Amino acid sequence: MSDEQSRLERHKARMLRKKAVIDASIAAADEERGLLLVNTGNGKGKSSAAFGVLARALGHGMRCAVIQFIKNRSDTGEEAFFRSSPNVCWHVMGDGFTWETQDDTKDRATARAAWEQAVVYLRDDKIDLLILDEFTYTLKYGWLALDEVMQVINERPLMQHLIITGRAAPDGLIEEADTVTDMTLKKHAYQAGIKAMPGVEW
Amino acid sequence: MSDEQSRLERHKARMLRKKAVIDASIAAADEERGLLLVNTGNGKGKSSAAFGVLARALGHGMRCAVIQFIKNRSDTGEEAFFRSSPNVCWHVMGDGFTWETQDDTKDRATARAAWEQAVVYLRDDKIDLLILDEFTYTLKYGWLALDEVMQVINERPLMQHLIITGRAAPDGLIEEADTVTDMTLKKHAYQAGIKAMPGVEW
Repeated sequence: MSDEQSRLERHKARMLRKKAVIDASIAAADEERGLLLVNTGNGKGKSSAAFGVLARALGHGMRCAVIQFIKNRSDTGEEAFFRSSPNVCWHVMGDGFTWETQDDTKDRATARAAWEQAVVYLRDDKIDLLILDEFTYTLKYGWLALDEVMQVINERPLMQHLIITGRAAPDGLIEEADTVTDMTLKKHAYQAGIKAMPGVEW
Repeated sequence: MSDEQSRLERHKARMLRKKAVIDASIAAADEERGLLLVNTGNGKGKSSAAFGVLARALGHGMRCAVIQFIKNRSDTGEEAFFRSSPNVCWHVMGDGFTWETQDDTKDRATARAAWEQAVVYLRDDKIDLLILDEFTYTLKYGWLALDEVMQVINERPLMQHLIITGRAAPDGLIEEADTVTDMTLKKHAYQAGIKAMPGVEW
């Protein structure tokens, strides 16, 4: 057997052992239910990962809803694209970031109204996937109480998936979540003086 | 003035100062060009964030292409959903992970063929966004050379956006990228014994 043949044989044996381990691990994960996913951190990808999962869910024929808690613009690419899908309800319910409104009373009322819309979906077993985009800010700023929010979330339909995005997700939310990713900023084009490009940032 | 009125006035003044800083920072970022984004790390969200940006780009009427370098299944929600869009070319060109093929010679040939398709798009200025999904593995395993790859990437059309996903992105790729996020695993439902749910994981 040549050195190259020998290398390939060893590779094959190693991969067979690896496959056995991975197959056993996959077989052990057999519970099925709706998941709570949290995308947090300071890097790019929190909302876009939620929208990627939305596309995935729509491809499986699932019924979905999106509520945007901070954003107040309706010219985004994601909204234009997903609004054409009959299986998505899309709600832009924010008023902009705190430094844009400069009005704490208004911010609290806006968050409360968006949460009331969220509660409607969290009690609707015809909704397979709900995305609460930029929702963590409502907790961070104390506009909504974590206890109140978690009670409704934990009582949602068994098979309903929920994705929450935003920076600084509180520990109490992370503890309750099934899958949590910290989108850790390594670098961002904005820091190098590049404008927010349509199709990438919005 | 009541304590509450006073609090709200202080909040407003603080937010006005914050807005001035942020507005100046936005004004300073004025360069426009195609970006190289890298989504790496061990957590969930690398591919889904790329597909969320794909939705965004399509919403702006951009022409897009996706090449999947490892995946060999065509029953995913994302493929079903995006294939119905006339502005996306979708290529599943993988053969599965190394422990599935157990064949290093085949893996190398598969990676080379997918890269040749990528090169076609990287030289096509009619493509506004290209996604090379799970591409980092071709570098990690040495199937493709970083130098060869970076030369084609750096010579692509000026306004073309490129997203590369996958674990363990090499330093040389990260250095050249504009925006890099490490999708850091905090926890994953799979670790708690929950099956890969359709609409969320595929």
